[in-house]
Amino acid sequence: MAIPSSLTSATLCGASVFPKAALACSSDFPSNLSSPFESSKICLTSFPASKKNATWNLTRYVAPIQGFRCHAMQVETRECFTAGKKFQLSDVIEGQQFDREMLSAIFDVAREMEKIEKSSTQSEILKGYLMATLFYEPSTRTRLSFESAMKRLGGEVLTTENAREFSSAAKGETLEDTIRTVEGYTDIIVMRHFESGAARKAAATANIPVINAGDGPGEHPTQALLDVYTIQSEIGKLDGISVALVGDLANGRTVRSLAYLLAKFNDVKIYFVSPEIVKMKDDIKEYLTSNGVEWEESSNLMEVASKCDVVYQTRIQRERFGERLDLYEAARGKYIVDKDLLGVMQKKAIIMHPLPRLDEITADVDADPRAAYFRQAKNGLFIRMALLKLLLIGW
Amino acid sequence: MAIPSSLTSATLCGASVFPKAALACSSDFPSNLSSPFESSKICLTSFPASKKNATWNLTRYVAPIQGFRCHAMQVETRECFTAGKKFQLSDVIEGQQFDREMLSAIFDVAREMEKIEKSSTQSEILKGYLMATLFYEPSTRTRLSFESAMKRLGGEVLTTENAREFSSAAKGETLEDTIRTVEGYTDIIVMRHFESGAARKAAATANIPVINAGDGPGEHPTQALLDVYTIQSEIGKLDGISVALVGDLANGRTVRSLAYLLAKFNDVKIYFVSPEIVKMKDDIKEYLTSNGVEWEESSNLMEVASKCDVVYQTRIQRERFGERLDLYEAARGKYIVDKDLLGVMQKKAIIMHPLPRLDEITADVDADPRAAYFRQAKNGLFIRMALLKLLLIGW
Amino acid sequence: MAIPSSLTSATLCGASVFPKAALACSSDFPSNLSSPFESSKICLTSFPASKKNATWNLTRYVAPIQGFRCHAMQVETRECFTAGKKFQLSDVIEGQQFDREMLSAIFDVAREMEKIEKSSTQSEILKGYLMATLFYEPSTRTRLSFESAMKRLGGEVLTTENAREFSSAAKGETLEDTIRTVEGYTDIIVMRHFESGAARKAAATANIPVINAGDGPGEHPTQALLDVYTIQSEIGKLDGISVALVGDLANGRTVRSLAYLLAKFNDVKIYFVSPEIVKMKDDIKEYLTSNGVEWEESSNLMEVASKCDVVYQTRIQRERFGERLDLYEAARGKYIVDKDLLGVMQKKAIIMHPLPRLDEITADVDADPRAAYFRQAKNGLFIRMALLKLLLIGW
Repeated sequence: MAIPSSLTSATLCGASVFPKAALACSSDFPSNLSSPFESSKICLTSFPASKKNATWNLTRYVAPIQGFRCHAMQVETRECFTAGKKFQLSDVIEGQQFDREMLSAIFDVAREMEKIEKSSTQSEILKGYLMATLFYEPSTRTRLSFESAMKRLGGEVLTTENAREFSSAAKGETLEDTIRTVEGYTDIIVMRHFESGAARKAAATANIPVINAGDGPGEHPTQALLDVYTIQSEIGKLDGISVALVGDLANGRTVRSLAYLLAKFNDVKIYFVSPEIVKMKDDIKEYLTSNGVEWEESSNLMEVASKCDVVYQTRIQRERFGERLDLYEAARGKYIVDKDLLGVMQKKAIIMHPLPRLDEITADVDADPRAAYFRQAKNGLFIRMALLKLLLIGW
Repeated sequence: MAIPSSLTSATLCGASVFPKAALACSSDFPSNLSSPFESSKICLTSFPASKKNATWNLTRYVAPIQGFRCHAMQVETRECFTAGKKFQLSDVIEGQQFDREMLSAIFDVAREMEKIEKSSTQSEILKGYLMATLFYEPSTRTRLSFESAMKRLGGEVLTTENAREFSSAAKGETLEDTIRTVEGYTDIIVMRHFESGAARKAAATANIPVINAGDGPGEHPTQALLDVYTIQSEIGKLDGISVALVGDLANGRTVRSLAYLLAKFNDVKIYFVSPEIVKMKDDIKEYLTSNGVEWEESSNLMEVASKCDVVYQTRIQRERFGERLDLYEAARGKYIVDKDLLGVMQKKAIIMHPLPRLDEITADVDADPRAAYFRQAKNGLFIRMALLKLLLIGW
Repeated sequence: MAIPSSLTSATLCGASVFPKAALACSSDFPSNLSSPFESSKICLTSFPASKKNATWNLTRYVAPIQGFRCHAMQVETRECFTAGKKFQLSDVIEGQQFDREMLSAIFDVAREMEKIEKSSTQSEILKGYLMATLFYEPSTRTRLSFESAMKRLGGEVLTTENAREFSSAAKGETLEDTIRTVEGYTDIIVMRHFESGAARKAAATANIPVINAGDGPGEHPTQALLDVYTIQSEIGKLDGISVALVGDLANGRTVRSLAYLLAKFNDVKIYFVSPEIVKMKDDIKEYLTSNGVEWEESSNLMEVASKCDVVYQTRIQRERFGERLDLYEAARGKYIVDKDLLGVMQKKAIIMHPLPRLDEITADVDADPRAAYFRQAKNGLFIRMALLKLLLIGW
């Protein structure tokens, strides 16, 4: 069946409101539709942007992509986009892809997700959708969080922590071929990979949404989002806050991403508190300076903690020290969050940690209401629920 | 929002009827409820204990636990507790936690589960609930049985057989921290661990129910329950039965647990039949004696089998013999259940085995109706269905 | 309860329309049914064969099998069998079990599945059914395809890629015992095994359906079916086609199975194009000849490709060459599908590949509409959906 060329533009004109998932390709056009373009066009243009929470029911058509034969899909009534949230999320690749308006909009959805999770027996908004967790290295914590998010919304999961087997040395399949195969089985791919840049490559290949669940030393954007969401939820604001980043600032992916994201807000002050050997690198410092973020280094955690809204502690990673265990031992014992530190912290301040922790936060801190790290881990669930919803069915 | 102090006592007064799962903590109170205590109180006191199978619909509130901010949850209409089954199950840690009334009540639920499983396309009582199988060592048999149980009731599962990765040597997270993280993703945890006592530790930490699916050389309570349930189902009673425990009685976790549980019933007679090298240990013998259970040791399996209601065969475990394969070979061939043994057994007696078996029961025995071991394995499904129901939604 | 002997024949007379799954055994007969045979009999005989898409609702009874106590099951209203599709599928063990009528009937169902998958949020026909993927060796690609198929139809999955653990060296459980245990947890078993013949053995033991997802060097019937289905879908026919089988024809399980299946159709012409060292073996050549299939060997891929409807490329498997990497390198570079080959191919011809591929098809071929290999992979989903439906609920 020939496809009218005007169709492509119709699809493109709708691109800001339709998730990538709904545009996925399959093999054939229904033969009982005489004028697909027309119905699509009408629907798109007649939609009143001011009408919040309205529902839509339309038939969309996509043009052929990369030599695949594409088809039209009937879309059921779904939540409408809301005025003011018009950007469409098609993949989640890095923290930097989000501006503060997007973050705010995503956080609104995450807050809705908190309510859904509480009465979790009811939610079914992703019923019938399938997510593949394509993990090239195990990360049980991250995987379970994503799978819980999908299932809390009524969706289903295909799991593999064995994805290297797809492209084992003997077989040598490219990542692109693996993605093209997996996208035939599922509606969204959550990928963990050992190589920086792998998520971007996968997203460029896939006709369905891809979420980066960590690619080697590169990005782990959902962790970055949940960190910022936790500060917003606990402190109530992101502008004007003071944050201490503590511990391994040289190697810690989370503190680097957090610094980047905080730079999108106003009047943020960042303190770096770390052993000399794992200091924050210059690229971040320069980035903060050029974005107007005040920062300073300090070796006095007590003093810094007394001034901050957030003390973000991290684990010193033994594996970074090779055989120099003496250096590791010296570094890891230097800045500990304990009861004494709690004593100087402000009443409304919080302690965060990406987990797992060793003894850089002592166990007797856990009972203090300012110990936010398990709530922070839980927020990962809400952020991931929000992203899955946005990528699969849109606003 | 301040929580009235009277609330705690209301919750405690309801503790015997509400499952732990329904008391789990989250982050906030709904603001639209003016007098939570009152509605909770009324519901609890006005409930007619004599009205079986009634339904309840109430709003409950929990006080803060361990510094977490807790919230109230709206509970949907669920099955009511039945008069006479007022104990509430909050965790399943060891076989010894159950008295004979509890066992009888659980077995009643398991029998209901047999009916549900048969028309499995209909059951949805655990719809919306999530179970995590947190396995620190693989045990495919046990894991699949639990996951089947959850799915047969409409629930969902997060799986990991890779739980050691959570707290790998390099990372060193405590079990408590792992539990606090996982309980944020799920409604119930089924844990298999390599260390005795791990399940108790997890249950003490978790605000959601924990089921012990085996902790090292320690307990495996669901196996113990399914063994007793099988005897009850097949023989029709537990009082007054005669049971032969055969094979590796020194190392077998299942026969030890079974002996403990049988001691809760009246007029039970136990025969120990085992190679000298793997005899039943004195602690169990003393326990039985002090609980008024008759027992004797015998080396004549034929004679014992002719008198027993149950012949419980076990595998001699090669790995217990180290390099003394000669001793292993001598031990394993000594007491075999075969056609000859069937010949002397009573018509209504049964043969049990915890599986897997090697050749300690010959394959030609399988076709005899008294070979109960595959029905016994299947009973594990019903017991686990019953426990999941009781822990998540109560009686 | 005594079972009337006439019951067995009633069941057998129904064997052609009831799937094995619906005949599975459990533990007891309902006591409230006075004349099971009669109701079963009436239903079967009164059914009008000409009434397509009618529904049936009946109660069936099975006789005791292998000493297990069996029970009657109430079957809900399901899709009726259609006249002309009267064979009943009870297991899928090898490609050769299907004749061309069966293939045609299965392909009809697969085509319905394509429609279901497109609006995947709706399908629930396998709701309440459980599938176990019992994989004795990992095969992520095949496993995900089966699991996606089951979930696209509303069914649920128990996963293990760790099935060897069931019967580890130390434990030594037989495959038969494992199957008897697993069939207690689930409604259908999809098995991948390292030993040829394992699937047949499992199917002989199980009272529920078994699908062979590859057994060692033996069969992989769903791959064979999806290959034939792809040719049918893309070319529009199977009679009268010309097919080039290219690459490793000596070791490739897929090309051997495809040759067998193509022999069931009329006027098929097969070309073998392969390096000398991995030529098609004589058994297949003789089989084709004795079944009236024309075949010839050629070393000129360009010439062959210009005449064929299908060019089926395969990967030269390095692991087959041991230390003779020189021979491997010579073989793998010999017959490449590239843009030049596309240039001589017919406009409606297609290129197939079982995946994964290395460089035996160059990446610049992917964009050509004749590159059918990712559509072929996707067809695996539809074939598996069709088989799961047929095995679990019948036509």
